[in-house]
Amino acid sequence: MKRTTYAGLVDEKYLDQDVVLKGWVQKRRDLGGLIFIDLRDREGIVQLVFSEEFDKDALAVADQLRNEYVIEVKGHVVPRAEHEVNDKMRTGKIEVRVSEINLLNKAKNPPFYIQDNINVSDDLRLKYRYLDLRRPEMQRGLMIRNRITQSVHSYFDSQGFIDIETPDLTKSTPEGARDYLVPSRVYPGHFYALPQSPQLFKQLLMGAGFDRYYQIARCFRDEDLRGDRQPEFTQIDMETSFLDAEEIQDLTEGLIAKVMKETLGIDVKLPFDRLDWDESMARFGTDQPDVRFGMELKDLGDLVDDLGFNVFNNVLKDGGQVKAIAVPGGADKYSRKDIDKFVEHIDRFGAKGLPWLKVTEDNFTGPIAKFFKDNAELYKAITERTGAKPGDLLLFACDSSRVVAQTLDYLRRTIANELGLIDESKFAFLWVVNWPLFDYDVDLKRWVPAHHPFTMPKAGDEHYLDEGEDPHKAYAQSYDIILNGLELGGGSIRIHTRDLQMKMFKALGFTKERAEDQFGYLLNALDYGFPPHGGLAIGLDRFARLLAKRGNIRDVIAFPKNSKAIEPLTSAPTTVSDRQLQDLSLFVTKDDDEGKEDK
Amino acid sequence: MKRTTYAGLVDEKYLDQDVVLKGWVQKRRDLGGLIFIDLRDREGIVQLVFSEEFDKDALAVADQLRNEYVIEVKGHVVPRAEHEVNDKMRTGKIEVRVSEINLLNKAKNPPFYIQDNINVSDDLRLKYRYLDLRRPEMQRGLMIRNRITQSVHSYFDSQGFIDIETPDLTKSTPEGARDYLVPSRVYPGHFYALPQSPQLFKQLLMGAGFDRYYQIARCFRDEDLRGDRQPEFTQIDMETSFLDAEEIQDLTEGLIAKVMKETLGIDVKLPFDRLDWDESMARFGTDQPDVRFGMELKDLGDLVDDLGFNVFNNVLKDGGQVKAIAVPGGADKYSRKDIDKFVEHIDRFGAKGLPWLKVTEDNFTGPIAKFFKDNAELYKAITERTGAKPGDLLLFACDSSRVVAQTLDYLRRTIANELGLIDESKFAFLWVVNWPLFDYDVDLKRWVPAHHPFTMPKAGDEHYLDEGEDPHKAYAQSYDIILNGLELGGGSIRIHTRDLQMKMFKALGFTKERAEDQFGYLLNALDYGFPPHGGLAIGLDRFARLLAKRGNIRDVIAFPKNSKAIEPLTSAPTTVSDRQLQDLSLFVTKDDDEGKEDK
Repeated sequence: MKRTTYAGLVDEKYLDQDVVLKGWVQKRRDLGGLIFIDLRDREGIVQLVFSEEFDKDALAVADQLRNEYVIEVKGHVVPRAEHEVNDKMRTGKIEVRVSEINLLNKAKNPPFYIQDNINVSDDLRLKYRYLDLRRPEMQRGLMIRNRITQSVHSYFDSQGFIDIETPDLTKSTPEGARDYLVPSRVYPGHFYALPQSPQLFKQLLMGAGFDRYYQIARCFRDEDLRGDRQPEFTQIDMETSFLDAEEIQDLTEGLIAKVMKETLGIDVKLPFDRLDWDESMARFGTDQPDVRFGMELKDLGDLVDDLGFNVFNNVLKDGGQVKAIAVPGGADKYSRKDIDKFVEHIDRFGAKGLPWLKVTEDNFTGPIAKFFKDNAELYKAITERTGAKPGDLLLFACDSSRVVAQTLDYLRRTIANELGLIDESKFAFLWVVNWPLFDYDVDLKRWVPAHHPFTMPKAGDEHYLDEGEDPHKAYAQSYDIILNGLELGGGSIRIHTRDLQMKMFKALGFTKERAEDQFGYLLNALDYGFPPHGGLAIGLDRFARLLAKRGNIRDVIAFPKNSKAIEPLTSAPTTVSDRQLQDLSLFVTKDDDEGKEDK
Repeated sequence: MKRTTYAGLVDEKYLDQDVVLKGWVQKRRDLGGLIFIDLRDREGIVQLVFSEEFDKDALAVADQLRNEYVIEVKGHVVPRAEHEVNDKMRTGKIEVRVSEINLLNKAKNPPFYIQDNINVSDDLRLKYRYLDLRRPEMQRGLMIRNRITQSVHSYFDSQGFIDIETPDLTKSTPEGARDYLVPSRVYPGHFYALPQSPQLFKQLLMGAGFDRYYQIARCFRDEDLRGDRQPEFTQIDMETSFLDAEEIQDLTEGLIAKVMKETLGIDVKLPFDRLDWDESMARFGTDQPDVRFGMELKDLGDLVDDLGFNVFNNVLKDGGQVKAIAVPGGADKYSRKDIDKFVEHIDRFGAKGLPWLKVTEDNFTGPIAKFFKDNAELYKAITERTGAKPGDLLLFACDSSRVVAQTLDYLRRTIANELGLIDESKFAFLWVVNWPLFDYDVDLKRWVPAHHPFTMPKAGDEHYLDEGEDPHKAYAQSYDIILNGLELGGGSIRIHTRDLQMKMFKALGFTKERAEDQFGYLLNALDYGFPPHGGLAIGLDRFARLLAKRGNIRDVIAFPKNSKAIEPLTSAPTTVSDRQLQDLSLFVTKDDDEGKEDK
């Protein structure tokens, strides 16, 4: 029997035709002499009907069927009885009278239902991933991911980009995140590293004159896992020669527009807004602003510097900021107790409290209102600047710019969520451009590259990398693309001369020897006619998750690791044989007791 | 300056227009007051002309240019002087009078010429891979590879296949080739393995109901390298549910036809020939037959069993074979000494000699001719069956079928090469189908799966896997696709029930415990409604090499390893820091002295 179409696609067009369908039993209803089977395949579900009238043998087989049995059927498409019509399903107006059936495989009773919105532990879902993936919402997630990658390939091809594979077994560079290592059997004590990104190889491909490169590239980072992270992940990676930052952004926008159209049928408006990093931090307190809603941060320092309110005064005197957001209708919606709860949360950013005001028709109320009272001019200035209306709540942060930004970004996002201010149907893209070249890493207690050490300084800022200057004043020719308040990807123009690249390494505290040892092959390549170049990478897992509207990237990865970096289906990682370790000249120094079995 | 087109694309269409070009200095000729520069980019070379007449400053810059300098120029396209026209180049009828130039980057003198057919060691080419890749033949190789992958994506998309990524950090299975291992930092003594292929994951995706999967997948094997092998390689991987072997072959042929058309503009004739494995072995002595030329193997056992020639008689009595190939015109081309040289080579297959006959108008000559002399009937029978004509050379192999096959396959290929009998412009595809299920591994001295342990026996041959039967008699639902005498890829219908899969493991000597331990997750999956399924994988590296007509797959891989598994550009694999080893709870048991630095 050759399948004529997918079960989920049998609609009125097939009326009065014979079809051959193959798939899984979703449900069986036995009405005594009449059996209804919902047959499922990747495109959906169709209703099969068995009766002695259509075929006696088929009815006998149907009687044996259980959920998830695999069958093939031949049948005739007829209209459903009027009261059985289901307008919500593509196949809801028809049913298939089965004249022939073959049972292709049986099934044990699955450990959870094959349907959307099940309430089952993640590890059970991952252990039976082949069943979890049968669920329509999971199939849809991977299909959306597939549509994205198809659009990516056809877009880059149409733009003259060349898909080039870069190696997965490469050199360890102890910069940045931790590498996954791969021991060499041939050379004891030597290791390959799995790539954290194809960054240097794609730059070398520009040095090799390919002009336009792209790749959907697997990357690896051995970091402790957080919500949206996996040990291996995939990026849409591209690099071009001779283009400036705006031209690369334009190319990327073309890609995004094509993906949105072909994946979800959505027309996005081009060009996207381009926000300077400084402006993004000022208006949203973050470089990943969610612009689907307002409540922008407003600096009120100049208005509140002589109110006699010491908290504000002291901060301002120390060079800090006083900024506020206006919560629409927040006066009624947030009690003093609610606000106290926020105080607990913002404590981790270093915020020492959360001053607030409720806005009335012509005045403010609340504990600190006394400092603002009866000052119509101040009321007007503050409400105008913040856009606050009577009934709104003003939340203040006063501290260093870093604390103010983190505090108000947190409050803005949290409150927008709580109050349902976010239009979840929107896809809000924008660029954040002109980042600082360096970023102070609070954990590492040192300056690190805001992007990576190959990023080109802003034209005119190169001199900050000279001897005796402060490199941390430099801005970069870098850009991130943001979707709905999350970084979707980022890129930059890269350094293409040895001289500037060495200055960059020096600013990061590299000795000449260490730079040569780790990146000598790049530095050498820069000597042989390296073109100006730049590029960008987009996180495919996150992109797919956002387009599929799923909560976790695991839902758009076929076989992900769990939050402990274990793949519960195969139990990887596993112990290996002594022989394998001997082949690799390796000895494990820690006992297994400290290992996986205990976790 | 925005580039208006690629240098290599400036032809007569651009006459009398201004162009902006960016690229590399291929060559400079200074005629005194007139400087010619060959400007190169990925599309080719165009001639630039500098003169005081066009622009004085530009001439001054041109005077400083050296090979591989990176420049951008603005100029006017004019016809070349008649005696300068080069009809072989797309840009050969024009030149560009340069009015403006910017030097974008300088270059040291490269260690080899940026041109085709250089005579330079492989390691030097790999160390300066960014320069090697600038050479037109290398650019073309990677561009052909890119065209293949673009065709693959668009073909599979058009056929309803879904591109799904399978994990690179997965479970070690000590079957088959050696795994590359990746130590887990979180679980001391535990390892991920890099996949040798996505085989089990793609089968699980069929279990998950995706129906049609494909992926261009990176695979890894830690084997000693041979000519056409790399530690990491790429395969075009696909799997389908509910299709039989022929349907999968048809789908694959559609893919091949599209690739050939879109990559090289070649129309291939469909369907490809499908040769039973038995027939392929009988006619060509190999399961990877090169059908671009004749000289097929002919069994002469029935004709030569009573000649009184003991060598033949003994072999035939022992159940061996006497087969021959007829070398066209070979009587003159191969001397007794030449034939003796072949004897040295075929010794490794176990052949104990190489009987031969030269064919004259009505008889045979040569040392064994006396056994055939004056037997017109035998002469007629042998020349008819072998197609030998006067002046041809008949080469005999008489031994076990294995030795005969290997000997005559070797001679057939070698002689066809030596005599130029192969039409190198041809792309000869065919299928070899219905392989044996098992193959005796002479090195391992045990039966191994001819494909892999998940291959479905031929319908009707399942019973050979039952207790007390000889499993090695079973044939398989498997198929290889052959291009020009090399395996391009292969696949099979897979086992989809636990019962049969367990029998297969048993036939391979697995205990139940070992099967459960290593493949329990697959066996469990087979319990939950697994559809009949099958698929195929094609080696992308080899496919690209054959289409690009290159001698080694390294020439169609951007950054390959050398024959010692080293990547000379980055020097990977390298030693790593003690800290990295500590993090992984690993200790290296062998001294470095035995390692890489000595090799």
